[in-house]
Amino acid sequence: MEEKELPLILLDAHLSQYSYVGGFQPSQADVAVLTSGCVPPSPPRTLPNVRRWAAHMATFSSVECLAFPPYTLGCKMDDQLSDLVHKNIKMSGEAQNSKKCPKNNKGGESGKGKSGKFTLKTPKGTRDYGPVEMAVRRQVFDTIYDVFHMHGAVEIETPVFELKEVLTGKYGEDSKLIYDLEDQGGEILSLRYDLTVPFARYVAMNKITNIKRYHVARVYRRDNPAMTRGRYREFYQCDFDIAGQYDAMIPDAECIQLVHQVLSRLNLGDFTVKVNHRKILNGVFGACGVPSEKFRPICSAVDKLDKTPWEDVRKEMVDEKGLDSDVADLIGEYVKLSGREDLLEKLKQDERLKNSTDAQAGLADITLLYQYCKSLGCDVHLVFDMGLARGLDYYTGVIYEAVLMAGQTSKGEGPVGSVAGGGRYDGLVGMFDPKKKTVPCIGLSFGIERLFAIQEQKQRAENEKLRSTQTEVFVAAACKGMVHDRLKLIGLLHEAGIKAESSYKNNPKILNQLQYAEDNAIPLVVLIGESEVQEGVVKLRETATRAEVTIKREELVLAVRQRLGKNS
Amino acid sequence: MEEKELPLILLDAHLSQYSYVGGFQPSQADVAVLTSGCVPPSPPRTLPNVRRWAAHMATFSSVECLAFPPYTLGCKMDDQLSDLVHKNIKMSGEAQNSKKCPKNNKGGESGKGKSGKFTLKTPKGTRDYGPVEMAVRRQVFDTIYDVFHMHGAVEIETPVFELKEVLTGKYGEDSKLIYDLEDQGGEILSLRYDLTVPFARYVAMNKITNIKRYHVARVYRRDNPAMTRGRYREFYQCDFDIAGQYDAMIPDAECIQLVHQVLSRLNLGDFTVKVNHRKILNGVFGACGVPSEKFRPICSAVDKLDKTPWEDVRKEMVDEKGLDSDVADLIGEYVKLSGREDLLEKLKQDERLKNSTDAQAGLADITLLYQYCKSLGCDVHLVFDMGLARGLDYYTGVIYEAVLMAGQTSKGEGPVGSVAGGGRYDGLVGMFDPKKKTVPCIGLSFGIERLFAIQEQKQRAENEKLRSTQTEVFVAAACKGMVHDRLKLIGLLHEAGIKAESSYKNNPKILNQLQYAEDNAIPLVVLIGESEVQEGVVKLRETATRAEVTIKREELVLAVRQRLGKNS
Repeated sequence: MEEKELPLILLDAHLSQYSYVGGFQPSQADVAVLTSGCVPPSPPRTLPNVRRWAAHMATFSSVECLAFPPYTLGCKMDDQLSDLVHKNIKMSGEAQNSKKCPKNNKGGESGKGKSGKFTLKTPKGTRDYGPVEMAVRRQVFDTIYDVFHMHGAVEIETPVFELKEVLTGKYGEDSKLIYDLEDQGGEILSLRYDLTVPFARYVAMNKITNIKRYHVARVYRRDNPAMTRGRYREFYQCDFDIAGQYDAMIPDAECIQLVHQVLSRLNLGDFTVKVNHRKILNGVFGACGVPSEKFRPICSAVDKLDKTPWEDVRKEMVDEKGLDSDVADLIGEYVKLSGREDLLEKLKQDERLKNSTDAQAGLADITLLYQYCKSLGCDVHLVFDMGLARGLDYYTGVIYEAVLMAGQTSKGEGPVGSVAGGGRYDGLVGMFDPKKKTVPCIGLSFGIERLFAIQEQKQRAENEKLRSTQTEVFVAAACKGMVHDRLKLIGLLHEAGIKAESSYKNNPKILNQLQYAEDNAIPLVVLIGESEVQEGVVKLRETATRAEVTIKREELVLAVRQRLGKNS
Repeated sequence: MEEKELPLILLDAHLSQYSYVGGFQPSQADVAVLTSGCVPPSPPRTLPNVRRWAAHMATFSSVECLAFPPYTLGCKMDDQLSDLVHKNIKMSGEAQNSKKCPKNNKGGESGKGKSGKFTLKTPKGTRDYGPVEMAVRRQVFDTIYDVFHMHGAVEIETPVFELKEVLTGKYGEDSKLIYDLEDQGGEILSLRYDLTVPFARYVAMNKITNIKRYHVARVYRRDNPAMTRGRYREFYQCDFDIAGQYDAMIPDAECIQLVHQVLSRLNLGDFTVKVNHRKILNGVFGACGVPSEKFRPICSAVDKLDKTPWEDVRKEMVDEKGLDSDVADLIGEYVKLSGREDLLEKLKQDERLKNSTDAQAGLADITLLYQYCKSLGCDVHLVFDMGLARGLDYYTGVIYEAVLMAGQTSKGEGPVGSVAGGGRYDGLVGMFDPKKKTVPCIGLSFGIERLFAIQEQKQRAENEKLRSTQTEVFVAAACKGMVHDRLKLIGLLHEAGIKAESSYKNNPKILNQLQYAEDNAIPLVVLIGESEVQEGVVKLRETATRAEVTIKREELVLAVRQRLGKNS
């Protein structure tokens, strides 16, 4: 049989059961099969599983492929397929790095018992959060919740999936990143892509005319994110939005104030809140001679300015989007500008913008926004940046983005970039209303995963150890056979609302118990021995100082509370 | 053209775009098409969308179908399909209830502009949570978190989806209820069905030998739940588990104590914690003469005792599961028993159980459990119930379930049933370990959605109004043109950590502002007019009493803090 023809149908059968050739995680076996010459660049529709796999493999870069673990037998495999894998692993292994192909793979099935590792993993682009990471997250969340409550925001929650049609037509070309659920008989569903569209759906569905709400939840994007930089396929968004027909710039100023408060409280160093206005951008485009049908594509070119030099953006405008180079140069003069109120005043007098209703309306808005921010005491970090455009189509007014200064210059890490952003979107709710009746909205979203990563890094740098438990007292026994006495003390302390733990062993060693309290930074230890039980007393030990005092049992709760600084 | 043949292919094309005939929610249009005689009971595979839709429609009862809203044009439809719908709507409308078929449907497209309602919804079995519901939830969660922290538990989080293979083979026949994600090129994924299997995967993957963790998150089951009784396809689970090799019954007693503490603190009335042991059940089955291969099916028959009378359970054992009727009768004698330590002692001496190693080991465990619970002060609600079996296969030791007594007898509501349950599962982690090395685990899960529903009901009954915001001060102005003065006060109060709001209008009416504070139970109002600003004072008003005092501006923060009982 031709080696090049046979295994495809086998491979398809194999991949109908497994995500990858080697089982449930990518390995050198996938690379081996891909480079064997057996798999055509575009597998036929009769091999749906090979098609899926090949398309998926194409999303990995060659660097990523090289980093796959070596293949170890993790799943059953047809002999012929196994032969193909091993033959090509050997070849590719030799070509790349012979260490990548462990010897015990050559033996085929025989190696399974000894070396066969069944590797478990979470889905691509996702991760588990362990206790320490959760503690950091709780800390960041609590700070943000506190600020949300400061503003009188209510909380809502929507389902993790929506009818697919709710999401359709809201995200432009990013729609391809939406996770669809399998059609298992029923409605056609997709995982939410952000929290803004479900919010607009909620407002329209419940005919709400005004609400100030926050929503903190995970969203899903079938992207190929750089996980090392804290970007995932499943990640938290932390949104605050104000919906309602209100007077100009008052809710907008509140959003700026809220960003200012959250970033100040998180204490992550200096930051800038860039602000711009879609009407100013449109006014500039119009005044520079951009035809109105090109406003959006040109706007999304400007959006790249924070990552791309002007020359490349200009090239995109001229070469890809067919703008006259003179027009592009003119735009360049404007989008490079940033400043504060002086710039606003200058632009109001600008010859080209003088007659642009849009530009003048936008400039008046930002001027008023500055005044309100001054009254609120949050104008110091506010920079009017004409190069800020924001990607999403649905913005209609003020737009803003907060950037941390720390880490911007450090070589290895690259810029931290935006940690919050948002703007006014007055038309989105209307897309869900049968009569197209809309509710003006403004909102912002914190890039919370980045904030977690920065906070973790900061705590590591400061050698700060965050506790993952809240235990206040550890109940220890100095001698054997005291498990009931320990449990009684636990019952007593819990009854008084004191957080207390003890060992799960009948006869734990005293040193291990004290070590546990120290390792977990539990501030107090209640220590008993036979004599203490007989005399109705306990020893109370402070973990930090190791100082011990003997206290009557009935005074224990009070003594613990005093030491913890708790009110009775 | 034959009316019976044509529309199927049209219908398929239509349903490739829409969830239902009428758009995105079921309506009388679906009933009309179903009853038109055009759709065969089992549509061919060439019509995948009709198949999906027909299978989905079959999940609705006739009562549910009758309750569908009338069809109003909510989406584009081919003329022939539209004719079919209208013809049959009229017919079915007349046959059932002519009022169900509104007149304006007859006009077809012409009715769209006027009456066409585009109805938005959340997916079947899901719901949004509004501000008031979220406030109830936060309250219940905070109580439970507090108890979890009391026990020194850490928090973890896992992805909302897992590799499909992680879930495979863990839920028996319930596996059909798992939501799969569409294969969009990549790994094959499913939404999590519970939090226990992801926990076991986490423990095995990270080679953890001991952990006490909680995890509160939503899980997904493609069930047909009774939403009116607080059951959904997307619902919260609230899990606490202890993994590790420890001395007998100490972690088990802690789980019982934790259930006791949570239910006591939630203050939902009297409750019972039923406890049993899989080894006792196995011992009883063996002693009564059940062949060992029938232990599991007989156990799952016993599991139905809480909802089904013994006679029906006996029938299942004999007729369906082929047990001798004498053996069934004998089992009946045991599973009806419930009591406390006296029953344990009696059973230890029972002639049949005397020689059962399993039964004696289980009885010894429960006896020790009682002793530990006594020391912990949580034995009062503990009932040894030999009819408790718990559905899941993976339990290996102690099992328990908490039942609220309130509502049990009231006619309309039916029993509240179980609000928490769990048990020991010593083998699950081993299913994920390459060397089958296991970590013994015990855990419990709160039926948190039921607890929310009960709490909501209780608060309605007690006419208790839960605030959905935490605002402490509303800043109001008595005259026009004071927006900047209000914002300055907001800035001042926020700076001092006081939760404060103001109106988004430039010139809000004073009565509306005071009304807002009253409606939202905001305890204090800071009131300014022109004279106050000139004199550097403010009026501080208590919303409840409407008492006002005039205070110097620089003393405002202190005065507010005092009234709120806050420490400076």
